[in-house]
This record gives sequence, structure tokens and C-alpha cells, in this order.
Amino acid sequence: MPPTDRELLEAQVGSRLRALGLTVATAESSTGGLIAKRLTDIPGSSDYVIGGVIAYANSVKHRLLNVEEQVIAEYGAVSQPVAQQMADSARTLFRTDAALSVTGIAGPTGATATKPLGLHFIGLSTDSGTWVRRYVWDGDRAHNREAAADAALQLLLDYLDGRL
Amino acid sequence: MPPTDRELLEAQVGSRLRALGLTVATAESSTGGLIAKRLTDIPGSSDYVIGGVIAYANSVKHRLLNVEEQVIAEYGAVSQPVAQQMADSARTLFRTDAALSVTGIAGPTGATATKPLGLHFIGLSTDSGTWVRRYVWDGDRAHNREAAADAALQLLLDYLDGRL
Repeated sequence: MPPTDRELLEAQVGSRLRALGLTVATAESSTGGLIAKRLTDIPGSSDYVIGGVIAYANSVKHRLLNVEEQVIAEYGAVSQPVAQQMADSARTLFRTDAALSVTGIAGPTGATATKPLGLHFIGLSTDSGTWVRRYVWDGDRAHNREAAADAALQLLLDYLDGRL
Repeated sequence: MPPTDRELLEAQVGSRLRALGLTVATAESSTGGLIAKRLTDIPGSSDYVIGGVIAYANSVKHRLLNVEEQVIAEYGAVSQPVAQQMADSARTLFRTDAALSVTGIAGPTGATATKPLGLHFIGLSTDSGTWVRRYVWDGDRAHNREAAADAALQLLLDYLDGRL
């Protein structure tokens, strides 16, 4: 549900990044570029958005974001350690102060015996630590992707506002 | 303007890529992830979307996509040769059959003495050649970004349908 009486999350994040002089990058799997798209919807966002990787195939997670193949094999691509490695590597690759990552099962297919449809891990890497939050949403593909982007932007906002 | 009586461009592109067994990657500057987001809006798109780079900062265009610093200095980031190098490098980086690129001035700021607001270059790299189309849109930031994504998807569709 889009906020009507308050600023968009991407605008709130943007004004804080600008005020603090910080930069951000993204590493997205299931959201496929939606987080970067929302961050760059904001005019002037080139002052704090450096870039991003869309790591849709696991081979890209490994080759571009240094996610260990053994970690993908052991935990699966939709897992806490993969979200953590994606965020940490994106921060290094883009030389930013912060990096957001998302890996999830947006649907309508992709569920496994151990991982439900809608399962997502959202990562944030910063120089004071890396956080990963786990969510399961039960909407359709479009809903789950927007929810994952919201959760990523909220995680960054919580960090920037000193709530982590 | 969203099509009402026909399939979305990203769905048309997706069904052709699937039928032909081809893969695609993206290298986006001004669209900031919108093209990849639209491609991956389609369920099952992981069969043909491998990944993408959002090269918002010029440093990312150079470091990740091998766009020559001299080319950026001589022609500017919003130029035909930069769009061409972005597309060619993305195709190599992601090892795909095709790669789309966009570099442009979405607005509301960024125009220069020689480059108007709304100027965009859209690139497509394939194993049979690289094409770059030039556009100037006069809408607002959101309009120009959607128009650039439409133009990129249309360029790929034209290629897949043998119209290039």
C-alpha cells in the first residue's frame, strides 16, 4: 500500500543519505532491480546511489558477488548467509558506505520442501556490521517483490536513524 | 502509455527469448534498474534473465563495464560510444546472447550546453552486431525513464523478430 500521508521510503532514505554524506549500492536477486529503480526514482539520487548488481542467476551471485558456491550448495540461494555475502560483496565492489541485498522466492513457483513461497532474506552491509532479516510474504509475485523492496529500504532507514 | 489491448513488451520479449533459447543481461544508467525490473516482473523470467549492472556512477561504468575513461571524457557519459561499450561489456560479463544498455539524462537536471534534457542512448549487443538508438523525450523524470525502458525492450523485440 503506497503511503499517502508521508514521504516514500526511498525519499526518506535519500534525504538521510544526503544529509549524512553516505553512499549506497544494491545486490538484488528476486527483486530484479526494483530496489535500485525505487532509489533512483528520486531526482538527484546520483549524489548517493553508486550502482548495483542484479544477480538473478546463481552463477552471477558467485562470479560477480563472490558468494561461495559451497554456501549456495549447502544453504540454498535463498538463505541468510547468501544475503549476507551479497550485501558485503556489493559494498566492497561498489566502494559504498552501505549496501542492500535481497534473495527470495517471489513466486508463483520456486518453493521447495524446506522453503515456502514468499520466503525472503534482506541484507544490509555497513562499516559497523551486517544485518539480515527474514520474511515470508503470502502475496502474489508483484506484491512480494514490492514488500521485499519496502523491507530493504526500511532496514536501511532503521540503520540511518540509529535503530539497529 | 501502458498497452491495454496487447501483451506488455516485457512479456513479448520474454516469450521470444524462451522460444529461441536465448538469454539476456542489462547495463543501466539513467533507468536505474527499471529494465531489469520489468523483465523480471514476468513469472519464469529466471529462465532467460541472467543479471544486470546498474552503473549509475561513471566510476562503475568504467570499473565494472570497462567503459574507457577516455571515451567518457571525450564524448560524455550520455553518448553513443558509451551505450555501445556498456551493452558489449554486459554481454561479455554475464555471458548472455544479448545485452541491453541505457545511458541518458532523465531529468529534472543534468542537461548541458550540448546535451538536452531527455537525451538517451539505448544499446543492444548481440553476436550478430551492436545497435544504438538515440532518443530525446520531453516528459518528466518518471516518463523519460519508462520511455527509455520501453525503447530498450522494443529494440530487443525488433532484433528477436528479425527487424534489425
